[in-house]
Parts: sequence; C-alpha cells; structure tokens
Amino acid sequence: MDYAKESLKLHYEWKGKIEMTARAAVDNKEALSLAYTPGVAQPCLEIKEDISKSYELTRRWNTVAVVTDGTAVLGLGDIGPEAGMPVMEGKCVLFKAFGDVDAIPLCIRSKDVDEIVNTVALMAGSFGGVNLEDISAPRCFEIEKKLKEKCDIPIFHDDQHGTAVITLAGLINALKLVGKKIEDIKIVTSGAGAAGIAIIRLLISMGVKNVIMTDRTGAIYRGRDGLNPIKQEMAEITNQNCEKGTLEEVIKGADVFIGVSAPGTMTREMVQTMAKDAVVFACANPTPEIFPDDAKAGGAAVVSTGRSDFPNQINNVLAFPGIFRGALDVRASDINDEMKVAAAYALADLVSEEELTADYILPAAFDTRVKDAVAKAVADAAVKSKVARIQPSV
Amino acid sequence: MDYAKESLKLHYEWKGKIEMTARAAVDNKEALSLAYTPGVAQPCLEIKEDISKSYELTRRWNTVAVVTDGTAVLGLGDIGPEAGMPVMEGKCVLFKAFGDVDAIPLCIRSKDVDEIVNTVALMAGSFGGVNLEDISAPRCFEIEKKLKEKCDIPIFHDDQHGTAVITLAGLINALKLVGKKIEDIKIVTSGAGAAGIAIIRLLISMGVKNVIMTDRTGAIYRGRDGLNPIKQEMAEITNQNCEKGTLEEVIKGADVFIGVSAPGTMTREMVQTMAKDAVVFACANPTPEIFPDDAKAGGAAVVSTGRSDFPNQINNVLAFPGIFRGALDVRASDINDEMKVAAAYALADLVSEEELTADYILPAAFDTRVKDAVAKAVADAAVKSKVARIQPSV
Repeated sequence: MDYAKESLKLHYEWKGKIEMTARAAVDNKEALSLAYTPGVAQPCLEIKEDISKSYELTRRWNTVAVVTDGTAVLGLGDIGPEAGMPVMEGKCVLFKAFGDVDAIPLCIRSKDVDEIVNTVALMAGSFGGVNLEDISAPRCFEIEKKLKEKCDIPIFHDDQHGTAVITLAGLINALKLVGKKIEDIKIVTSGAGAAGIAIIRLLISMGVKNVIMTDRTGAIYRGRDGLNPIKQEMAEITNQNCEKGTLEEVIKGADVFIGVSAPGTMTREMVQTMAKDAVVFACANPTPEIFPDDAKAGGAAVVSTGRSDFPNQINNVLAFPGIFRGALDVRASDINDEMKVAAAYALADLVSEEELTADYILPAAFDTRVKDAVAKAVADAAVKSKVARIQPSV
Repeated sequence: MDYAKESLKLHYEWKGKIEMTARAAVDNKEALSLAYTPGVAQPCLEIKEDISKSYELTRRWNTVAVVTDGTAVLGLGDIGPEAGMPVMEGKCVLFKAFGDVDAIPLCIRSKDVDEIVNTVALMAGSFGGVNLEDISAPRCFEIEKKLKEKCDIPIFHDDQHGTAVITLAGLINALKLVGKKIEDIKIVTSGAGAAGIAIIRLLISMGVKNVIMTDRTGAIYRGRDGLNPIKQEMAEITNQNCEKGTLEEVIKGADVFIGVSAPGTMTREMVQTMAKDAVVFACANPTPEIFPDDAKAGGAAVVSTGRSDFPNQINNVLAFPGIFRGALDVRASDINDEMKVAAAYALADLVSEEELTADYILPAAFDTRVKDAVAKAVADAAVKSKVARIQPSV
C-alpha cells in the first residue's frame, strides 16, 4: 500500500482524527440548569474549597495534554507547530484506544525553552498530566526538567522515556534468553539524542555498570573536546574505563548494542567482533542501523528494531498509554524512574518463559493485556515511591 | 428542585462533562500505519508547505479554546482556575450541543495580563478560535485587545459580546413594538463591567446617538474625577450632552434602560419618569435590577431579564454557538462588529412580525433555528467585512 497517498486521502475524509464530545445532556431547561448555571456553581465552590476535588468533579482525572513545538516531528525535523498537529492528533487517538485517556493536542508557536515551559506550566491545572512530544534535543531535556520542577502533575517526554521503557523491557527478556545478567554486561549505544540519553539513564538506574555512549565522533568520555552540556553530563556517568575511539572500535566485546541513530551505523563485521550471543537493538526508523538478517549473520542471538514488519518491534504504543493510565489512576504527581522500570518489567513479564524466543521478546502492539499490566505496575510503583496521591482501586 | 445539591451529585456521576473521542480507528496494524506512522507524515508535509491546510487535515477547522483565569466565574468572583473548570466544561458542552463546535477548556494559573496573552497566543495554531470566559474587568478588555492584535484567529469574550449581541437583538424587536427608531432614542445603562461596556460599544456601532452610562457614582461624563482608563474612553463616546447626576436623575425621559449591574438598582418610581413606552432590560443575575411586574407597573412596555422563569430571557446560548459556527465556517480571522450586529439582526428576525409581542421579543434558548440563522448571518458578514478566508458553503 502507498501509505503516504492513502493516509492523506483519509485525513481529508476524517477532517480531524479527534473530537470533543459531551457527557452531560443540555437538551431541556432543567438539564441546562444542572450542567450549567445555576447548578454548576456548587461544584465550582467545592473545588474552590479543596482543589483536589477537581479530579472528581471535572475531567481532569483522565486528561493529558499532548504538547509539541513541532521541532522534531517523526523523522521530518522542524516542520512547525501546525504541521505537527496530525501526529499529535494521532497520538491522542492512541491515548484513547490503548489507554482510555482523554488527550488534548497543543502545538506551541515558540522554540524558546522558557516560553514553552511557562505556557505549559500555566495550564497545568487543567490536566492530570502532560506528554511532551517531538521536541528536539537538547531543548527537550531542559523543558522537561524545568516543567517537572514547576508542575504538580506528571511530565513525560515520550520520545525519551517511552522508548527507554520498551528497550529496557526487550533487554530484560533478551538477557534471559542468552543467560546474562544486567550488572555484568557491556552495552554500547549509538546516538546521543533524546531516546539515546533516556535509555542510558534508565539502564544505569537499573544497575548497568558498563555502558559506553557513542555519537558521530565516536565514544563519549570524560574530557572529550567539544562536548555539549548534556553529553558532558553523560560522560560523567558512563564509560567508566574512559574508552576512546569509533563505534567500530568500542563495540568490540560488547554484549549489547543499542542504536537510536542513523541507517547503516552498524555492520555485520562489527557484530562479529561483539561478545558471544550478542544482542542488537537497531531502532533507527524506518531504516535501522543494521537489518536483522545482517545482524544475525554477524552472530547476533537476538535482534530488535522499530519496524512492525520484523519481530520484536520497539513500539511506543506498548508503554505510554499504560504508563499514563497508571499515573492518572493514583493521581501521581510525577512519573519517576521507579515507575518506568516497573513498566518495563511488567511488559517483559507478559512474555512467559515458555513463549520466550529470539523472535518474541516483547508483547505485540495489539496485545490487550498490555494496558492493564503496565498501568497496575506503574500505579503500584507510584504508591511505593510516594508520588501517588490516592491508592489504586483494586 | 435544589439545583446546587442535584448538580453536585450529577457532577460526581459524570466525572467530567466532556470527553475526547477518536474519529479514526487504530484497531489493526494497517489502520495504525494510516492514522499514525508512517502514513501521517504526508499530511504533516502538506501543512508544512501550506499552513492553511491545517484547517483541512486536522480538527482545527472546528476547534475553539474556552479560556479563563477563574477571576470572574459566574457570580462567584475570583475562585481560581481549577474551580472555574466546571463552568468551562459546561460551556464546552453548550458549544457542542448548540453549535457543533469542538471546544477545549483551558484554565490558566495566572492573573497577569501579559502572561495570559502570551499563553493563549502561543497556542493559537492549535485552534480555529478562542472564547474568553469569566475574566474580570478591566483585565478582560486588555487581554482581548492584545490577543486580537497578536492572533490570526477570532478572539471573542463571550461575557462582553455574547451578552451585547442578544441585548441588541432584544432591543431591535422591542423598538419595533413601541415604534421608535434606534437613532432617535435615549438609552441609559447601569453597570460599567464587561457586558455593560460591550453593549454600549455595539449600540454606538449600530447608530445609537444618545446613550448615557452610569456606575455606582452616577452618570459617566467627560472630565468626571477619578475615572479609570476604560471609563474615560467610554466618556469620550457617550453622553454627548455631558449630563451629570445619579441614575435616578439621568434616567428621566430615557426610552431604554439597560441594567447589567446589581439587584434593586432600578425602581418603579424611576421607570415612571422614563419616556412613554419605556423598554427595560434588567439583566443582573439571579436577581434583576427590577422585577418585571414592578417595571410594568411603572409603565414599561417591554421588559427583559437574564432569567429563564420570566419572558424575554437574555441567554448567551442564543449567540455564541452560532457566532463561532459562522466564524469557523468561513475561517474568519476575527469576529468584528459587523458580524456581531449581523448576529443580532438574525436573532431578532427569528421572531416574525405576527409573533412579536411584549412577552416574545427573542427566540427561546431551544429554538432549533437559532444556530443556522446566526451562523449564516455571521459568515456572510465576515465575507462582506473581508475577514473570511474561505467562502461559506451554501
């Protein structure tokens, strides 16, 4: 199918992929007086007395803003806020279909970090959470960090953390297959964008000790010339042996490769230099760092990509709907590392030991168990890590 | 019925009066690839090339933001953004039910004019229009003015202009009944808030020559001590004879009284001093400036209030849904005076000469002809006044 052509045609027919609908009737005078004035004054006053009632008397409990500035939309780059809207509406459809979440797309006409932060922070009282989407690095890190400081609701940049959670889930199961432990392995990553950095941070919070990050210049290490602030920060917490050199050089002996970079970054020959039973995540989209056949020919035991036409797809729809569902269910004030790790284990656990094979390390996108399993794990982790404001209903 | 109690109970049951729903299915891999990646890239690119395509390929064409800072919610005053949300959700329900408009409630955590203006302006690419709601005077004037300068979509403060349109519609028909012409009459208003000022401005744009505005101190006239900037502005364009004195004094001989002030401001004795066949609009809510029976006993020929239990209700639901419907239908860049006046005449015309009586000068809130009649008149006026970006479909 010509997806571009067919999708465009459908978009003209849909005239918008989302729609606001009413849950209250106003079809007669009395109904109007209850949903609107004069009756509506009473719920207003209840919330004025206790703001937490906004989670009971309005849709806030189930509402997430999907926010972008249009600077890093899909692989299209900086196409502007209006042009980013079809993706944001699509994301809202996924939120509803896979998480029962009401999502509102907001495309901001600014690339200035503080302007974006202020705009979102000033609206935080209208939502139960904020999903940042397709905002370019390194601005996305600063925007997320500042918003987390300013807001009392979860701020979650899906391009970072959704991808990290699913990669981690896949890695957990891949390591089961090859019989290695997360604290013993050497991991080399390629790509220092939003996803790459989030993956490394989450791996480290999981107990990974030996991880080297590479960019176009090669390995990132403490003291390398010309590192930007975020790479300097990463240099501090990775590459403990200060290995230098190209990806081709530092990949030698690695147990795991994680690519979130560009097509062709990895070769069969490079896989051959990795440790026995190598695990290869080649997530560049639509063309991966290395195709699965090539990676396997180089000796990889498990291969994962971002594509739905190969096994083991890293598909964000596995994570963000359940993560927000769980966070909303306990009115979490944050989505923290504990919740992300819990989501990764919940996803990994959906593949039983009997089912687990090199071609099935992650549940499928349409596995109907995913939402509830992830949501429950996330809600429980929120309670344990003390960011939940109510208990999960059983 | 105890509306407060019953409405609160219903709000707990509704758990939000609005809900975001999907118009596109994502229930299998192919559907996902069309509504989301990779297919969605194509509509994004089309909008990147031509931003006006955002009105065809996303929901923007039908979407209005309902924005408040929670400072003047109903008669409750400054109750805060979260506490204002039940009203905003109610407004969104009305937008859908009476105008087929998708409305998104946004409650802003700031009272600073420029912060509110920036927040809304930065999001204007996501909407086809903005409805400002329950923002206190005089900030509401400045916020609206600045937003109109900054934005290429309609900005409409319903508390001002919706009320003004309906008052004008009622006045048009009341004058038919008493056989007076709008350019000949003397009008006195009470209340210098958002609605009062908007009503006067619209009356003047309609050709009213003799209008006096009063506040608690009495008549507003050029040079009165202690006038704030907005009242100074109004003093320049009203009260050409520089009449001074209390409402009781300046109401003498007036043909029309319009109250948007406080209960009891008007008395039977004062109505007795008005011109023959006086018209009285007593819109203070829930208790009017004067009750209809009293006004009639004083000699008023036509009386209108804001209440649904008396005839001739000034009910905003008659105006804003159709006004936005019309503005959206032609992708108007503004809602200007021409469009508001057209809406008023369209509303007035729905009461035929045969039907017109002192107790029936305005169509009822649930008159199903209202939306289309107002929308058509507004769209046509937008075309004529050159703020329409497309022609109305017939």
